[in-house]
Amino acid sequence: MDSARSFAPVQAADIGAFDHETDVLVAGFGCAGGAAAYEAATAGADVLVLERAGGPGGSAAMSGGELYLGGGTPVQRACGYDDTADNMFAYLRAALGPNADEDKLRLFCDGSLEHFAWFRERGITFNPSLYEGQSWMPPTQDGLMWLGENAYPYDVVARAVPRGHRPATESFGGWLLMDRLTAAAGEAGARHHVDTAATRLVLDGEAVVGLVARRYGERVTYRARRAVILTTGGFVDNEEMLADHAPVLLGHGKVSAGLDDGSGIAMGMAIGAATRGMSVTQIAASILPAMICRGMLVNALGQRFINEDVYPGLASAAAVRHQPGPHWVILDEEGYEDIPKRDLWNVRPAFADETLRGLEKDLGVPPGSLETAVATYNRHAEQGEDPYFHKNRRWLRPLRAPFAAIDPRRGFGGEDTSTGVSGFTLGGLRTTADGAVLDVSGNAIAGLYAAGRASSGIHGAGYISGTSLADGTFFGRRAGRAAAGGN
Amino acid sequence: MDSARSFAPVQAADIGAFDHETDVLVAGFGCAGGAAAYEAATAGADVLVLERAGGPGGSAAMSGGELYLGGGTPVQRACGYDDTADNMFAYLRAALGPNADEDKLRLFCDGSLEHFAWFRERGITFNPSLYEGQSWMPPTQDGLMWLGENAYPYDVVARAVPRGHRPATESFGGWLLMDRLTAAAGEAGARHHVDTAATRLVLDGEAVVGLVARRYGERVTYRARRAVILTTGGFVDNEEMLADHAPVLLGHGKVSAGLDDGSGIAMGMAIGAATRGMSVTQIAASILPAMICRGMLVNALGQRFINEDVYPGLASAAAVRHQPGPHWVILDEEGYEDIPKRDLWNVRPAFADETLRGLEKDLGVPPGSLETAVATYNRHAEQGEDPYFHKNRRWLRPLRAPFAAIDPRRGFGGEDTSTGVSGFTLGGLRTTADGAVLDVSGNAIAGLYAAGRASSGIHGAGYISGTSLADGTFFGRRAGRAAAGGN
Repeated sequence: MDSARSFAPVQAADIGAFDHETDVLVAGFGCAGGAAAYEAATAGADVLVLERAGGPGGSAAMSGGELYLGGGTPVQRACGYDDTADNMFAYLRAALGPNADEDKLRLFCDGSLEHFAWFRERGITFNPSLYEGQSWMPPTQDGLMWLGENAYPYDVVARAVPRGHRPATESFGGWLLMDRLTAAAGEAGARHHVDTAATRLVLDGEAVVGLVARRYGERVTYRARRAVILTTGGFVDNEEMLADHAPVLLGHGKVSAGLDDGSGIAMGMAIGAATRGMSVTQIAASILPAMICRGMLVNALGQRFINEDVYPGLASAAAVRHQPGPHWVILDEEGYEDIPKRDLWNVRPAFADETLRGLEKDLGVPPGSLETAVATYNRHAEQGEDPYFHKNRRWLRPLRAPFAAIDPRRGFGGEDTSTGVSGFTLGGLRTTADGAVLDVSGNAIAGLYAAGRASSGIHGAGYISGTSLADGTFFGRRAGRAAAGGN
Repeated sequence: MDSARSFAPVQAADIGAFDHETDVLVAGFGCAGGAAAYEAATAGADVLVLERAGGPGGSAAMSGGELYLGGGTPVQRACGYDDTADNMFAYLRAALGPNADEDKLRLFCDGSLEHFAWFRERGITFNPSLYEGQSWMPPTQDGLMWLGENAYPYDVVARAVPRGHRPATESFGGWLLMDRLTAAAGEAGARHHVDTAATRLVLDGEAVVGLVARRYGERVTYRARRAVILTTGGFVDNEEMLADHAPVLLGHGKVSAGLDDGSGIAMGMAIGAATRGMSVTQIAASILPAMICRGMLVNALGQRFINEDVYPGLASAAAVRHQPGPHWVILDEEGYEDIPKRDLWNVRPAFADETLRGLEKDLGVPPGSLETAVATYNRHAEQGEDPYFHKNRRWLRPLRAPFAAIDPRRGFGGEDTSTGVSGFTLGGLRTTADGAVLDVSGNAIAGLYAAGRASSGIHGAGYISGTSLADGTFFGRRAGRAAAGGN
């Protein structure tokens, strides 16, 4: 790797006079960086944010903007749902596990009501209505949606309450979120430099005291009087890091703004920072929630493997991680016609057939496999039960000819997405709940904080929509406050 | 973490006079350390090996001692099998993948004949006979065994040739292997200090020039004039590192001598070394190969999920990683009686029943699930085919009442092993094919090498018996030669 890509730290004594100086220096202006900058500036610190792109936003600005919040928010109450921090914790512990960081998760749930209020105070509103359908992204402006809370086994582990909070906007949720966070950070006094990519940490002895950055090929040096906060995002756009740590994402689509190159994680590792959960990812196939719940989701052997009404991120992760592919959605005509047009996204069946034997040939699954699977499904559906996977009885109905198969590799709207799978990374630098980066001996590195996907947050093996934006902003705020308090 | 557990490096200037000095300093006297020490000493270097335990051996000494070797060894030829490096590569690329390090794997296969000869020259012999049965560890002294090469899909990807080489001994293979490697290293001139745990790297600027160790609570310092080689093993005995990097092993048994604490990996990370594949593990359930191939292996839903004649490590990894448990082996009386006594290890059925409906109740699997699975299996077995998983037809026979179910959680011989699962870690420091440890920028760290399970070797996601000992010794030898050559 050429020296321009080196992440090795630089000693402050070798820099001499810095080009810029601030109290708190933030690398990366996505949701975590914006939240950190706002809180640090509000706490009275002089704050400067470096952003590699031409403007703030990061991958957060390209997201749907859903925020996983609960514990009894005004939106939940307006929709008729009681919730508690304990109930939220019980669900997330199961859905984000196993091996979620329970200390962080506890804080995240206990602080969720306050975090909701914080978003409202930043000018983000949520309409007090619930979208009842099964959808990745409702085509309405309802402010609340289900994110898997009402499906087995999660409805047994915790009381089913919807927690997907959606910013009210006629444009795009992620864009709105970042627009408001950028404005809030600026109003609080935080400055930012765009087109400026942090490349190396600056050390004074063992303490972090600044960053070296590149702007249009020139080296620019920044001194941080109090602390550096790394909020540079994950590493889905770095093929080498994916191969080393999260190879499940190799070859698939990238959920990012194209700049999640893992540079902050690498800068931390270069000075001995520990990492956690580097193999953990969000990974999802382009299956339609409103479609799978009305039929069967099967693997390349024609076998069902999960309740189709579960959060679709968990269904598709189960498929991609654990089941031989290709995967297929099997529907009958009545099921297909029953899908609300707004939830269909113009997806058309890849194959249709009067008989399951014919469909087996079309799909290349073992002869008899779909016949067996549908016969078993129908026998149970007639009794209103699903003893294999406990799909809710409201979705259970025997499937009758003619049948259709949908290929998730075709993507929404029918375009060929090669694998039909995309994702991003959830592991990163190991941090305390206040964002202090830990070294491999378990000690905090003086002057260094991290948040968002540059760090490891509340995720164990699982992922639910809105948990990355909510975790990034929640722990970004904590890191900002801690960094402003000095070290 | 208290300072006694700190992995932070020490500057040589802060040590002054070292207690000991050598050319090549090796940390850890398992199979990789022994191989490295032998080669470095043979190349003319003064070599000193530090071993934390009371004597050499490490986890290698507790293993079965199988060595994955091929390319046409004298043992393979004596048993009537031709083999080539290309054919070996084709199998291992599939069985150790996806995402195996193909550059290392290529060298490993191309050098396997020479590596076989090297073991013979060190006094390790292999009887020229093949064990034909399905077994983790044959109860005979046959020098060759199958390790999954003759099962689908591997028998399609490559020509089926057995490559499991077993040292001839009436005692234990791993013990014999380490006895010979220890003697060879000593005869070549390498010294060793036991009860001496390496704890920190010593740096001169950015170059590694020694180690700090602890012996009976006292600090002892070692200078390495040429290089340090970390061969300290993996991290299965470090619960915190498992939680951070390989949580799949949490709560399961540990395949180790109890000292695989990840200290070498942590020492490397503390100076900015990169890692690779830290989530990759060997993980296996205590299923009996001779038992599963004669029946069905099913998950908690009574579904088959793999061809039961595949290498049992891959079958059990598929079960533990990808299938809801508990898992069960379903046999009929004829199948059970057909198992050679020597391959039965006194394992008794947990349940026996005249009907599958009764067995379903005993196991708590969905009603009708075993009836469906067995009916499907039998319908195909009568045709001599397994269109779902392609189990070889020599094992296909319809299953008839009475039926039995075996619980792998009971372990061999019936003792309760809690989970019935055990394993060890395969990820570690990222190294070149010559063992040079790379930093996160991709540059070799001056003076630092690693091999064995302290490093990432030829494994992607998969594991085959004998590949860890063979990889550890093969790349340990290369690291020893490179380290002796200076830097």
